[in-house]
Amino acid sequence: MLDYKLLAALAAVVEQGGFERAAGVLGLSQSAISQRIKLLEARLGAPVLVRANPPQATAAGQRLLNHVQQVRLLERDLRHDLPQISSDAGRTRLRVALNADSLATWWAGAVAPWCERERVLLDQQLEDQDVGLRRMRSGEVAACLCAVEQPVAGARSLLLGEMHYLAVASPGFIRRHFPDGLSQADVRSVPAVVFGPDDQLQHRFVRQLGVDGEFEYHLCPSSEGFVRMLEAGIGWGMVPALQIGDALRAGRLQQLSPGWSQPVPLYWHYWRSGGQLLEGLTAELARRAPALLAPGVSH
Amino acid sequence: MLDYKLLAALAAVVEQGGFERAAGVLGLSQSAISQRIKLLEARLGAPVLVRANPPQATAAGQRLLNHVQQVRLLERDLRHDLPQISSDAGRTRLRVALNADSLATWWAGAVAPWCERERVLLDQQLEDQDVGLRRMRSGEVAACLCAVEQPVAGARSLLLGEMHYLAVASPGFIRRHFPDGLSQADVRSVPAVVFGPDDQLQHRFVRQLGVDGEFEYHLCPSSEGFVRMLEAGIGWGMVPALQIGDALRAGRLQQLSPGWSQPVPLYWHYWRSGGQLLEGLTAELARRAPALLAPGVSH
Repeated sequence: MLDYKLLAALAAVVEQGGFERAAGVLGLSQSAISQRIKLLEARLGAPVLVRANPPQATAAGQRLLNHVQQVRLLERDLRHDLPQISSDAGRTRLRVALNADSLATWWAGAVAPWCERERVLLDQQLEDQDVGLRRMRSGEVAACLCAVEQPVAGARSLLLGEMHYLAVASPGFIRRHFPDGLSQADVRSVPAVVFGPDDQLQHRFVRQLGVDGEFEYHLCPSSEGFVRMLEAGIGWGMVPALQIGDALRAGRLQQLSPGWSQPVPLYWHYWRSGGQLLEGLTAELARRAPALLAPGVSH
Repeated sequence: MLDYKLLAALAAVVEQGGFERAAGVLGLSQSAISQRIKLLEARLGAPVLVRANPPQATAAGQRLLNHVQQVRLLERDLRHDLPQISSDAGRTRLRVALNADSLATWWAGAVAPWCERERVLLDQQLEDQDVGLRRMRSGEVAACLCAVEQPVAGARSLLLGEMHYLAVASPGFIRRHFPDGLSQADVRSVPAVVFGPDDQLQHRFVRQLGVDGEFEYHLCPSSEGFVRMLEAGIGWGMVPALQIGDALRAGRLQQLSPGWSQPVPLYWHYWRSGGQLLEGLTAELARRAPALLAPGVSH
């Protein structure tokens, strides 16, 4: 069998974001961690880490991480059946990637009871809904929530529902920049707020107005910060209806195109060989999501 | 003088997170971008980019980026004095690093009027308050908000005030896990929620209780998601009092140690040679922060 001491060192470096923290978690010296990584690379004949800050797994390293996570999930099933095999009675860590807007709205309510019942600790990684599969493909996470249906090799996907995005801004911003309505205004020169480089929601909205090319925008990689920026009148942006019910009712935000919304489907991707734990979480999400999300249309 | 076409290509690759997007923004082909980077590296005799995904600046590349941003800010002052020098009448982009909890609470209200008045677009980068200076040192940002006072070389720092963090959880969670109060409970085995690997707030709270070593936690890198996780009863955690006034009043969250709070100072770091724009923003923050934050104690 493989030498799992070496693989555990690799996983700790990537998960903890550095050699020093990895050493702390594994109760080893930093030089012991470093030796294990070097030994792993010597056996493999290829580097497993890019020595950046934080260190990043190479393609070969990512394949190994993927394997480590699958083994961990299978070990959990084993401990359930043979509890005496391990003195480790602690909680299981599960890494999932999800979009910030889900984490800021419905996700916690859907998973909290399950985490408590199953004694699971979540390592939640933010990833834009259009690109969440990157981390799934690279083996960094065991499951992910994203807008893409097609699963990566070795995984399955399940449609949980849709989030509906509204184009909104503060009343003052709308008066200043769109006094005669949206169609009359030069949307290209009015600042928007965009979550990050992978967030295409605002771009799609602008294209739907028939405007080609670039527009001006602030970057704000925080769901709550995003709403704060819009309320403060710094720009317009696309926000899940779920997140701004109060702000709309109280008049802190108004829709730019009343009655219009952009649906974004949310697919749950999970490893086929993830064991009972992942299957249990999948079943829990399938049961709870319909009460929290709009129904989705499978393509 | 330096060849700024090459430096602009480097800046675009790092800021846009890839060669393809950099090409789109500069209106060049991807191979033209790639050639410019190679030419820059040939002249420098050292690599400027680690070809990871996304590409990362090497130490030499970071020094160049730092220079590009300073030149951009100085150009803005020039355009103000000699508007005819450039047909580019657009807005200025300013990159700042700040902690997620500021972005989720008081920041937007403090900077929005200034951005509108000065025609500035913000590229906001999230960085934990204990490590925000990393991006300042690496030249990725022109200013940063963090808990550390000591400025990096070439920069100044200014104390804006303090955020006060409370240890909170849902009433149900407290009943289940701390039925006899905090001092009686085994804090090590009760799950916490931690923002990310650099977030030490929960660790400090646990140490103040006299507990040494590790404890169990979920990772949740989203300010709003963090509060949602606590409200859903998945763990306890440290949250700025600013952010949870409503949740405390409505009883969705309760303090673990009523009356206790942990102050975190917020220092504004900005380049000395950042020109009038950065000085204007600094003056605006100094004026507005006292109404939004608790007064800080300079050390």
